[in-house]
Amino acid sequence: MPTIVKAYGAHSATDKLVPLEIERRDVGPHDVMIAIRYAGVCHSDIHTIRGEWGPIAYPQVVGHEIVGEVTEIGAEVASHSVGDRVGVGCMVNSCGQCSYCLDGNEHYCEKGAIDTYTATDVDGTITQGGYATHVVVDEGFVLRMPESIPYEQAAPLLCAGITTYSPLARWGTGPGTKVAVVGMGGLGHMAVKIAVAMGADVTVLSRTLSKRDDALAFGATAHIATGEEGALRELKRSFDLIINTVSAPLDMNAYLATLKPQGTLVNVGAPPEPLPVQVFSLIGGGKSFAGSNIGSIKETQEMLDFCAEHSIAPETELIPADAINEAYDRVLSSDVRYRFVIDTATI
Amino acid sequence: MPTIVKAYGAHSATDKLVPLEIERRDVGPHDVMIAIRYAGVCHSDIHTIRGEWGPIAYPQVVGHEIVGEVTEIGAEVASHSVGDRVGVGCMVNSCGQCSYCLDGNEHYCEKGAIDTYTATDVDGTITQGGYATHVVVDEGFVLRMPESIPYEQAAPLLCAGITTYSPLARWGTGPGTKVAVVGMGGLGHMAVKIAVAMGADVTVLSRTLSKRDDALAFGATAHIATGEEGALRELKRSFDLIINTVSAPLDMNAYLATLKPQGTLVNVGAPPEPLPVQVFSLIGGGKSFAGSNIGSIKETQEMLDFCAEHSIAPETELIPADAINEAYDRVLSSDVRYRFVIDTATI
Repeated sequence: MPTIVKAYGAHSATDKLVPLEIERRDVGPHDVMIAIRYAGVCHSDIHTIRGEWGPIAYPQVVGHEIVGEVTEIGAEVASHSVGDRVGVGCMVNSCGQCSYCLDGNEHYCEKGAIDTYTATDVDGTITQGGYATHVVVDEGFVLRMPESIPYEQAAPLLCAGITTYSPLARWGTGPGTKVAVVGMGGLGHMAVKIAVAMGADVTVLSRTLSKRDDALAFGATAHIATGEEGALRELKRSFDLIINTVSAPLDMNAYLATLKPQGTLVNVGAPPEPLPVQVFSLIGGGKSFAGSNIGSIKETQEMLDFCAEHSIAPETELIPADAINEAYDRVLSSDVRYRFVIDTATI
Repeated sequence: MPTIVKAYGAHSATDKLVPLEIERRDVGPHDVMIAIRYAGVCHSDIHTIRGEWGPIAYPQVVGHEIVGEVTEIGAEVASHSVGDRVGVGCMVNSCGQCSYCLDGNEHYCEKGAIDTYTATDVDGTITQGGYATHVVVDEGFVLRMPESIPYEQAAPLLCAGITTYSPLARWGTGPGTKVAVVGMGGLGHMAVKIAVAMGADVTVLSRTLSKRDDALAFGATAHIATGEEGALRELKRSFDLIINTVSAPLDMNAYLATLKPQGTLVNVGAPPEPLPVQVFSLIGGGKSFAGSNIGSIKETQEMLDFCAEHSIAPETELIPADAINEAYDRVLSSDVRYRFVIDTATI
């Protein structure tokens, strides 16, 4: 018999989030039940629950930055034990049988990985996210959360952390590389911290200088206000890699010009409209305009271990569950440094 | 005293090409004089000499696919000897002192590599291309042309060959990879032959099936007419790498959908207008939209040696110099299989 658990969610695209109850399935042989302690608030949560990325079923609970403790394990679970501190990110299952799943790239599953919320789960129910007291997840999608990462700050690593770690690692960030991070919000501030820990020389490109002190405190060597006339032109051929965390339609050709030959601009956010890319901006220097979306479970674990080893944690503001609607307003006006985390004990 | 040599060139952007005489500089200590035997006709030649890529000085001689024999060497030349069969491609010099030149990436020179035609040379003169009987080139930009490559077919390797070899090599083409080549003209047919020789499974994507037999003869396993409704949709997640040789503004998002996760679409041709790229087309699968332009001298030599080892040569139609204007018309109407080569003995 499914367990009824407390959560915060919405009854329609236009409703505010309110307390409600949802079902969690019985713990199957390969499942893990987690008592959620903290849940991060991602901008995607807002787009999704308001139906901005397409229609969804209601009531819906969002949240895909989850940390907590294991309270029950299925008969065949070997990778986690009751009492373990664990995390769950943006996906909770995949087909497990396609070449991508078998290669440990569940996020590229041929059938599509099962998202932590709004997706149709293996049992036909709609997945419900982490703004809740408990969740049941297949053991293969549960991460070990190192205890050295401050518990109440750890949640945003499960989305903001892996979303920035993955492209930084894939495109060879390390000593001697110059990395630019465009936009310093939830994703951007993690990109800065991780790239610095990887040994890169990091520049933040932001519209204004309002976050300059923070950028330097996170280890960036420069913070440049792109709103100033000619700022980008002076940066021609500067960067090996640019991580663009801004979803607004920036002039990509101006940013591509700041790449060194064979450099890559990776988008981890995206505007709904297509961006005009001048192909000559790419050809001359053999450059790439790329995208990246989360990472595999294996890479997510690698990221968590990396953050523990380098004492990296997100900058967070802890809120009670009943502050979530106000928090959404503040996310939309960029009034958060740098991620809200819900204390789920208050749900 | 400079040498006066015979050539074919234009006196204005709107004139046809006519016989004329140009000067070649004295052979300096690091220079090589080459008696040109064959010169390939590249689409870029036409754009350039007609002023379509910006104003140029006249009279101008184009041609950057050059093969011939060394007739004289400078006092300090060690890498080439009189009588050697050699080639010259799209660049004839670079600063030699920036980090890119020192790393053997002259094509990314900080000051810009000196193009084989229309560029300001180290002595202040304007470079003149290969539709001529002789050329003088710095030894560092002269390639060894393997004698096993049929002499009269070899010239197009110097541009069409390296332009396609470089991205195929850089993005890991080999056994087990699936490569698509968009458009099968001068560049495209070389991309097919080289990718097949590298061991890839190659598909040609072309508007119609008119070149299907050729594609299969070059070793492609499939030839798909993209003009047919739904053709691209059926190819979802098919390719590791796409080489786009078409300069017309195709729907890039439809092609990006045919890439496997982490796949790359490389443009080696480009329309003048920017292309609308839907960033979500890149993010989901961690894909790249890239560009590539020729290759370094070292890589060009590697390509020539690779083609010799694998018995690869361009498909060419040999023409006398006085047929060049008609040849230009035929290039513009895609009526050439697959590259014109001028027999410079007829100049």
